[in-house]
Amino acid sequence: MRNTGSQEVLTPETVGPALLEDVRDVEVIDVHTHLLPPSHGKLMLWGIDELLTYHYLVSEYFMVAPAEITHELFFAKTKLEQSDLVWQGLFVERSPISEACQGVITTLQRLGLERQVADRDLRGIRAWFAQQSLDEHVENIFRLAKVRYAVMTNIPYVEEEAQHWQPEAKPVTSRLRKALRIDNFLKGDWASICEALKKEGLDETMDGAKEYLRKWAGIYKPEYMMASTPHDWRYPEPAAAASMKPLVKAYAGFGASELLEEAVVPVCEELSLPIALKLGAWRGMSPDLDPCCGGDGVASADVASLQALCAKFPKVKFLVTVLSRANQHELTVVCQKTRNLHLYGCWWYCNNPSIIEELTKMRTEMLGTAYTAQHSDCRVLEQLLYKWDHSRQIIGEALVICLTGPPWICFPLSPPCACALLSAPSEERLAPHSRGAQTRLAAAAGRLLRGIHGPVSCKRLRRP
Amino acid sequence: MRNTGSQEVLTPETVGPALLEDVRDVEVIDVHTHLLPPSHGKLMLWGIDELLTYHYLVSEYFMVAPAEITHELFFAKTKLEQSDLVWQGLFVERSPISEACQGVITTLQRLGLERQVADRDLRGIRAWFAQQSLDEHVENIFRLAKVRYAVMTNIPYVEEEAQHWQPEAKPVTSRLRKALRIDNFLKGDWASICEALKKEGLDETMDGAKEYLRKWAGIYKPEYMMASTPHDWRYPEPAAAASMKPLVKAYAGFGASELLEEAVVPVCEELSLPIALKLGAWRGMSPDLDPCCGGDGVASADVASLQALCAKFPKVKFLVTVLSRANQHELTVVCQKTRNLHLYGCWWYCNNPSIIEELTKMRTEMLGTAYTAQHSDCRVLEQLLYKWDHSRQIIGEALVICLTGPPWICFPLSPPCACALLSAPSEERLAPHSRGAQTRLAAAAGRLLRGIHGPVSCKRLRRP
Amino acid sequence: MRNTGSQEVLTPETVGPALLEDVRDVEVIDVHTHLLPPSHGKLMLWGIDELLTYHYLVSEYFMVAPAEITHELFFAKTKLEQSDLVWQGLFVERSPISEACQGVITTLQRLGLERQVADRDLRGIRAWFAQQSLDEHVENIFRLAKVRYAVMTNIPYVEEEAQHWQPEAKPVTSRLRKALRIDNFLKGDWASICEALKKEGLDETMDGAKEYLRKWAGIYKPEYMMASTPHDWRYPEPAAAASMKPLVKAYAGFGASELLEEAVVPVCEELSLPIALKLGAWRGMSPDLDPCCGGDGVASADVASLQALCAKFPKVKFLVTVLSRANQHELTVVCQKTRNLHLYGCWWYCNNPSIIEELTKMRTEMLGTAYTAQHSDCRVLEQLLYKWDHSRQIIGEALVICLTGPPWICFPLSPPCACALLSAPSEERLAPHSRGAQTRLAAAAGRLLRGIHGPVSCKRLRRP
Repeated sequence: MRNTGSQEVLTPETVGPALLEDVRDVEVIDVHTHLLPPSHGKLMLWGIDELLTYHYLVSEYFMVAPAEITHELFFAKTKLEQSDLVWQGLFVERSPISEACQGVITTLQRLGLERQVADRDLRGIRAWFAQQSLDEHVENIFRLAKVRYAVMTNIPYVEEEAQHWQPEAKPVTSRLRKALRIDNFLKGDWASICEALKKEGLDETMDGAKEYLRKWAGIYKPEYMMASTPHDWRYPEPAAAASMKPLVKAYAGFGASELLEEAVVPVCEELSLPIALKLGAWRGMSPDLDPCCGGDGVASADVASLQALCAKFPKVKFLVTVLSRANQHELTVVCQKTRNLHLYGCWWYCNNPSIIEELTKMRTEMLGTAYTAQHSDCRVLEQLLYKWDHSRQIIGEALVICLTGPPWICFPLSPPCACALLSAPSEERLAPHSRGAQTRLAAAAGRLLRGIHGPVSCKRLRRP
Repeated sequence: MRNTGSQEVLTPETVGPALLEDVRDVEVIDVHTHLLPPSHGKLMLWGIDELLTYHYLVSEYFMVAPAEITHELFFAKTKLEQSDLVWQGLFVERSPISEACQGVITTLQRLGLERQVADRDLRGIRAWFAQQSLDEHVENIFRLAKVRYAVMTNIPYVEEEAQHWQPEAKPVTSRLRKALRIDNFLKGDWASICEALKKEGLDETMDGAKEYLRKWAGIYKPEYMMASTPHDWRYPEPAAAASMKPLVKAYAGFGASELLEEAVVPVCEELSLPIALKLGAWRGMSPDLDPCCGGDGVASADVASLQALCAKFPKVKFLVTVLSRANQHELTVVCQKTRNLHLYGCWWYCNNPSIIEELTKMRTEMLGTAYTAQHSDCRVLEQLLYKWDHSRQIIGEALVICLTGPPWICFPLSPPCACALLSAPSEERLAPHSRGAQTRLAAAAGRLLRGIHGPVSCKRLRRP
Repeated sequence: MRNTGSQEVLTPETVGPALLEDVRDVEVIDVHTHLLPPSHGKLMLWGIDELLTYHYLVSEYFMVAPAEITHELFFAKTKLEQSDLVWQGLFVERSPISEACQGVITTLQRLGLERQVADRDLRGIRAWFAQQSLDEHVENIFRLAKVRYAVMTNIPYVEEEAQHWQPEAKPVTSRLRKALRIDNFLKGDWASICEALKKEGLDETMDGAKEYLRKWAGIYKPEYMMASTPHDWRYPEPAAAASMKPLVKAYAGFGASELLEEAVVPVCEELSLPIALKLGAWRGMSPDLDPCCGGDGVASADVASLQALCAKFPKVKFLVTVLSRANQHELTVVCQKTRNLHLYGCWWYCNNPSIIEELTKMRTEMLGTAYTAQHSDCRVLEQLLYKWDHSRQIIGEALVICLTGPPWICFPLSPPCACALLSAPSEERLAPHSRGAQTRLAAAAGRLLRGIHGPVSCKRLRRP
């Protein structure tokens, strides 16, 4: 890491390489993943066969697979057999040029398995993974990926996950922090909430629901509550749904808006927790691919609903990312205008190089450093390597374009600030925008310039 | 053409130029055009005056034409007079910088008419075309454009076209293959279908309609059936239309969904024919421009309808392209998830350099090589030259960016695979995704690496 | 400025730099701003504190401001105090990398205040501005920005503006021309129109409304009438609104479509005035930011309404720009097909480098030179400097890409034509597309090649 002491002065010629180097080297915080710790047993996904059978690759495989390989046939096979088929179909018989395929190559290369890749030696690759000690491997991956820590997605109402948290919590590496997933609340799925309440011995009432959230917030000590909303999510609920409410209530309890307003928001205010929303997944579009979790498509989200929600609850901090590329411009405008809304990352179908580049430029131009450039959304441990490697390169290049184009060249960000998009302030950005907590955000503005590289000082450029 | 034998090893520095060269040189298959053979007489469009009065240029001309040149006045003139006006207005009085104008320049340049272009010598250009022997000229254009063959759009229910096919078929050059256009079925235009049935002496029933499709499939031996759908096309038809059906039926026979489900799909399954759909043209937006076929605008398509159609008929292979840039991301996601749906080309208002670049990057990142990068949509023979020249350059550059950006650099496609997007597999991609036919697709995966350049082998790159 | 006499021949290697130089140097016409002349007193915004408290920066500031700085608190402060806060928050404590922040830097740099910027010396910057003589400063800014003149937005129904025009008009520098703002007509806000009519002593009838427009056209002698439409603007008004009309009329007079058809259009035809429309602002999205005029968001516009309006009134020339990036492709298509519709500029949330680049490429590809590449939308005088500096650079680079990519390289625009996008023809483009007026547009086609640099001649390139 270069020494960027306050005396150093960058010229227009040196600022680009310095910026790229800094973005490549900075230790990041990964604000949203689906990783789990080794203590969670088979729920923790890692290794070459999980990488190869990840849903991105399975659906890509089916685009070119022989017709006789039906979805039923494929998913009836063992993980190893599935992995063999994907490797043969996408990495041996075809050239692996999609982002998902190139991601596997980058990952293996970063682990020193270049020879095995070049020889298409899947057996050799498996052998390497089999030799790893799991806890050391986790640490190694985080170190190689330069990720300080990642936030998990913890689902209290799925029994096979919950068992690792109560009656007593299994150990969790300091590389992973928690997030409390509450999709059933945002969906207005009162029936499923009641099941969860029953299991916990809580009343099937709004008070019971609040108690449930408080209880699990107590267990997880999460960074935020989070939900991926239904594709047709609206806030407030449309008139049609509202007028049906008395009837619905008799059978099904509470609607999505009520649960949000009367349970989720009050508990988040009480505990100073932000609410992270992911908008625009079209659930179950391709049911054939559901067995690998790859059945979801993309839908245009109603960004106006998000704006209405933030305006209604100014004391809650909201974090947001959307899946549709067509929504990104509108969303960036809303974020620029809404102080309790923070934009993060390029999600899933937007997490591809050309779109990351497009979004990073647009967001930097409109938001400055007041957003979080990326998150990985990883479900398999080693994906951290390629997701961050690729994103660092693209984000770095986009920032260089934003900052070195004449004529606006004399006053670029000092290198530590570039890193702000990826690291230190992310931590602060998770802070709830409520009462005292906002002062943490203010304090971050100062830290942002001290950064992790050296003392405060926005470098001044010599004019060319 | 470089010899890319299996021993050759490309370095990160050489892979870019090699890729560009391969994309420039590979012989392509043009999966959708409106070209017709010389035997079809005046229906076959070629030569400088057809180039200059093509609707792209006529509507561009009207953007800057003197007010006294009304549409009525212009279209009342002869083709030659129209061509004179466009040349004067767009190539002499203004700088020809639009893609359509630059296309004419590239075309003339490729034909060796640079001097005439530089001198604005339209008379000289016309003289050159007048000297050509038509059959040789056709062959020459395909050879220069490096197009192995192009697929026509053949419309059975237009009498001036049909007369060239029955009672006996006129000869068709091997450079052209057939496609059976069925817009009236997709539109649910039962009245026009009945007219066609009557002319062929067939019953005005669903069975008659099926017989009609079978008959023309027998005459054309088409690569696929195809339709450009109405801008408000929905599948299934909306509830409102459905509830009106009994009434409609009494007067007008069958609706669009019925015709698709009960005539088009069964015949396509029976004959193993794919169905190619073009979504998003807003027909007749500017009726003033209809005389030159330039009156259509663009509308956002309902991609969910396409997804529903593919899911309902998994044994039929669908090919698709959409006109609206705003739909492209969503469509790419649906294609990645739907094994019987194949994406092809950048259509019309998306067939411009900056959008081709954007789409090629996005599609390669999300689909790998499992799509067909381009088609020309040519209506005038010589347009093949510029459409493919321009696209090869842009697609080549986009692929280089996809494949040479560190850090995902060690395992790019071997050059023959790059060409897969433009050529060999296109042929296979037309194969219906039904029963045995899919095995042809599987076989293509192997051929894809043998390609047309040499033996199978994904080149391995030396690490820098 | 290079001498580009008709003898000069550019090669593919020299056309790029020549183009960039020409775009950088050409004197432009700024077809839409919110600038006002010094004679309008405090309505004329200029100087560092107006720059720093411009709404782009205030909303950006609130994204990172301490929670204790509420909107109420901030807007209760003096302009100077607000300016201090923004400077401290965005330029001292954070790195100023957004387009709005970089714009301030570029502006100060162009005024020779680099040292003060580097030292974060706000006091020094203020001192410099305090020394300027206002009339000279205005002239200086236009000269530095190479803007021949800018069009203002003049609102007759706002009393504090109207007082500068009647009973007698204050002097206006020749650097500023007029536009008659008629938002209340496009909104169908009959109540507010009646208030304006009453104030002018006119009948509260459609005839009174026409007289009102005529009167103010007589006072301003405007370049065009203009309106920024409501986000849900439709033409014609939806059936629901239409069926309510009799009732509405009883209370509120006329609807938006009626006012357009029966007052605005007839007067514009009568006076040969174009109508400029700005579509897609979502008024009052964030009321907290309304005090600084920054409360508006973006909405998708109904481009089909615009098309219907142009088709209905072919003798009126319409100018248009839209706010949503998602609408831009569709709009460009409609412009290419509609001879009485002229596209101009990248508005507000689209006026950022990456989007200007995207739009300039797309528009040049589809429209050639038949559009106006940019307008500044400035509200503070000195913003002219950065808006035009930044745009010239991006537009120049986009044109170079459009014009120098092989293989369509032999016939690019002559440099004066490149400038057409920014200057001379803009003047003609404002001419109404009606009867005789269109001949002015035709005449412009000739001038376009004579341009401002030298005699007519599209430079011919030597082939490489």
